[in-house]
Amino acid sequence: MVDSRLIPETYDRGFQQPTPRSVEEFNELPAHVWPKNATRTSNGAVDIAGCSLAELADTYGTPLFVVDEDDFRSRCRAMAAAFGAENVHYAAKAFLTKEIARWVNSEGLHLDVASLGELQVALAASFPAERITAHGNNKTQDYLEQIVTAGVGVVVLDAPGEITLLNECAEQAGVTQSVMVRVKPGIEAHTHEMIATAHEDQKFGFSLASGSARAACEAAIEAGNLDLVGLHCHVGSQVFDAEGFSQAAERVLQLFVQLYEDRGVRLSTLDLGGGFGIAYTASSRALDVTSVAEDLIHRVDRRCEKLSIERPRIMVEPGRSIAGPTTVTVYRVGQVKDVHVTDTQTRRYVAVDGGMSDNVRPALYQAEYDLRMVNRNATGNPTATRVVGSHCESGDILITNESYPDDIATGDLVATAATGAYCYAMSSRYNMMLRPAVVSVKDGQAKVMVQRETIEDVLGKQL
Amino acid sequence: MVDSRLIPETYDRGFQQPTPRSVEEFNELPAHVWPKNATRTSNGAVDIAGCSLAELADTYGTPLFVVDEDDFRSRCRAMAAAFGAENVHYAAKAFLTKEIARWVNSEGLHLDVASLGELQVALAASFPAERITAHGNNKTQDYLEQIVTAGVGVVVLDAPGEITLLNECAEQAGVTQSVMVRVKPGIEAHTHEMIATAHEDQKFGFSLASGSARAACEAAIEAGNLDLVGLHCHVGSQVFDAEGFSQAAERVLQLFVQLYEDRGVRLSTLDLGGGFGIAYTASSRALDVTSVAEDLIHRVDRRCEKLSIERPRIMVEPGRSIAGPTTVTVYRVGQVKDVHVTDTQTRRYVAVDGGMSDNVRPALYQAEYDLRMVNRNATGNPTATRVVGSHCESGDILITNESYPDDIATGDLVATAATGAYCYAMSSRYNMMLRPAVVSVKDGQAKVMVQRETIEDVLGKQL
Repeated sequence: MVDSRLIPETYDRGFQQPTPRSVEEFNELPAHVWPKNATRTSNGAVDIAGCSLAELADTYGTPLFVVDEDDFRSRCRAMAAAFGAENVHYAAKAFLTKEIARWVNSEGLHLDVASLGELQVALAASFPAERITAHGNNKTQDYLEQIVTAGVGVVVLDAPGEITLLNECAEQAGVTQSVMVRVKPGIEAHTHEMIATAHEDQKFGFSLASGSARAACEAAIEAGNLDLVGLHCHVGSQVFDAEGFSQAAERVLQLFVQLYEDRGVRLSTLDLGGGFGIAYTASSRALDVTSVAEDLIHRVDRRCEKLSIERPRIMVEPGRSIAGPTTVTVYRVGQVKDVHVTDTQTRRYVAVDGGMSDNVRPALYQAEYDLRMVNRNATGNPTATRVVGSHCESGDILITNESYPDDIATGDLVATAATGAYCYAMSSRYNMMLRPAVVSVKDGQAKVMVQRETIEDVLGKQL
Repeated sequence: MVDSRLIPETYDRGFQQPTPRSVEEFNELPAHVWPKNATRTSNGAVDIAGCSLAELADTYGTPLFVVDEDDFRSRCRAMAAAFGAENVHYAAKAFLTKEIARWVNSEGLHLDVASLGELQVALAASFPAERITAHGNNKTQDYLEQIVTAGVGVVVLDAPGEITLLNECAEQAGVTQSVMVRVKPGIEAHTHEMIATAHEDQKFGFSLASGSARAACEAAIEAGNLDLVGLHCHVGSQVFDAEGFSQAAERVLQLFVQLYEDRGVRLSTLDLGGGFGIAYTASSRALDVTSVAEDLIHRVDRRCEKLSIERPRIMVEPGRSIAGPTTVTVYRVGQVKDVHVTDTQTRRYVAVDGGMSDNVRPALYQAEYDLRMVNRNATGNPTATRVVGSHCESGDILITNESYPDDIATGDLVATAATGAYCYAMSSRYNMMLRPAVVSVKDGQAKVMVQRETIEDVLGKQL
């Protein structure tokens, strides 16, 4: 019934058939992408840590974030084993709730915060302030005052004006504040442009090449109430080997040497930031923390030998690589429709009850996710499918183009994996879609870590 | 003091000097971008509707959204004058609070909602349900039930499954629900790929070309508790002339004719959606609503003459073009630093106390904004400047590359204009940066429309 007079110009816009995937393959849960304790049970439904996702969805509604507590803790322990617990700072910006701060605390890790709000959540969870490092390119007076008052362990300095401001706050509080200087080593790990952070033309840190890093260190050394303990750098996100980290380390170590030779100041700490990559899709690989840590420390050791200096303590700040793989987002399938994209081809559109409000990463970074049906095994034939959210925006796409079985139907439950980092943390109320609940699961028990928002939460703030 | 061994590979990455702009030009407030009642007073500070932005910032904190009520209302009236108040539906997704719903109501306009949450806010503001149109590509059962129960005027059907579902809801409530069918006319107005919505390969609506739009109309006509009153289409966002609208109208009108000739059904309404463009920057133009409306209605009249049908009522759904230009976001300047981007060139980085949590559009759509200093006149020399937010992400950029006076300093206030649409509405708590307050101003009086979020709002929902 295609009316040829009405065929739009956009019809032939390059519809690409996705790589076909068998239904058996679709029913798998790739272990390197899904939470450690996720399993498809004999009836075809998916459990995490003994909790049925279907039952959780019925109890707590959808969309729903489900966090595998044991997986989270085991990732903390793997990082601690690789670098030493006292050298691992969980980057709160990836995903922070009071309960997460408690987990990180009980695993003996340190915590990075990037704002006053993150600091307040950590303190509300009784996270020991001395094990907190405070970041931020634009720390406000309020934030700096609370940092100093609470006794935050280390502040990472990020701008010349901040050095003066923090020194004043420390002076007023009568304390000496330990600080690091954030250095731009000019290394850029190969990653998405938007989340690559070590190149020069960006807001974070002080340039090594221009001399501003050296000048910032001098200013911190001169400041009466600051104690410069180390240097910090961050090479990017989704990094998969030691190369970028160690190249950055080599450059930053030159400043260690200069400060020792010229000023007699021996810094104890080299903080190499975060960026450890995770697998978002079945075809992508996960980073092996143990081997990357070994490789990295070995390279830094050799470099320090050459420079005839003692190797500083190496700190890292994993956020995504701890939180990311532990969490899935469960959605209820709503409308399913076949859309003609060329005269002879259709694409199936599967709409779910969330979208860019609970996961803005596909729209923001063209991020890809692994989606599976979780209430039963699929049985259909592979069909070109796009999974979209419920927002009033055509860019609200969760999965752009995949081959999924054609029996996914209204009422089914699907879940995207590896949504622990930068999903709930960046969630909005776009279209007044209220933020989902976050539930942790462990040994067959579920706990609500964050309650679902209600319309009363919205209306209560409004005139 | 540049160490040539340390010059990074990224140094020569194409630093583009922005077009120089004089300080006089910077101190202007382009009338087509800024709220109608914004003026720079004799002391150099900016007022809106007689309220000093500096005083508002002191009273309510920053970041702060400030809405010019009179401008909002006058834009409602301009749309009403051009199309008839009963034909103008304010698109709530752009910016909705109870107070905004009251303004729209008192100006006699209709209201579009795109989710259950938007409907609930409208009803909480006593917006008459019969003047509400309900959108959504994936309306949930809850949403459809509340639509029917509340007596929402019209539902725009978006998927085959929804026709059955809504008919059942209407039957159970014992009512007949007026509906429109959303049609994809295959017209794509020239706009950003992500926000272009009328092409075929997208989630909204039923394709005219494939026959699915016709089939959906037939299904709605057959459904016992639905009354098909019209057809809906939406050609895109940021459209600046009548061409795209009228081309879409021409295609959709063919379905009006077919339904009349084949089924004897005469539809009363042609809803051409939203997408009326606004000026975000001084060099961009604003759309002239009056002339576009005249042109559009004239073109549709001619088409209807040719088709020998009576012209249907033409409805439009402006959101951005009403809310967008009425609002500014006021930020406090924090750290200012000069960053070496080549061996000989620096870029000034001005950090403000908000960012991608209160305005995700630059990161999401590469959207550009007009920024001015609002607490005083600038006096400095033009310098290449980037304005960044406070988030722990290098892509957190508000203004990428502009020529601003070099005296903008820590403590100054700056504001971005035209932030009324899709800024607060899409705001997040990324990095636990709490959502700003929204204040309306009129005749020298300020009113808090939405209170600033507090850390207690966050912690109160958490375990």
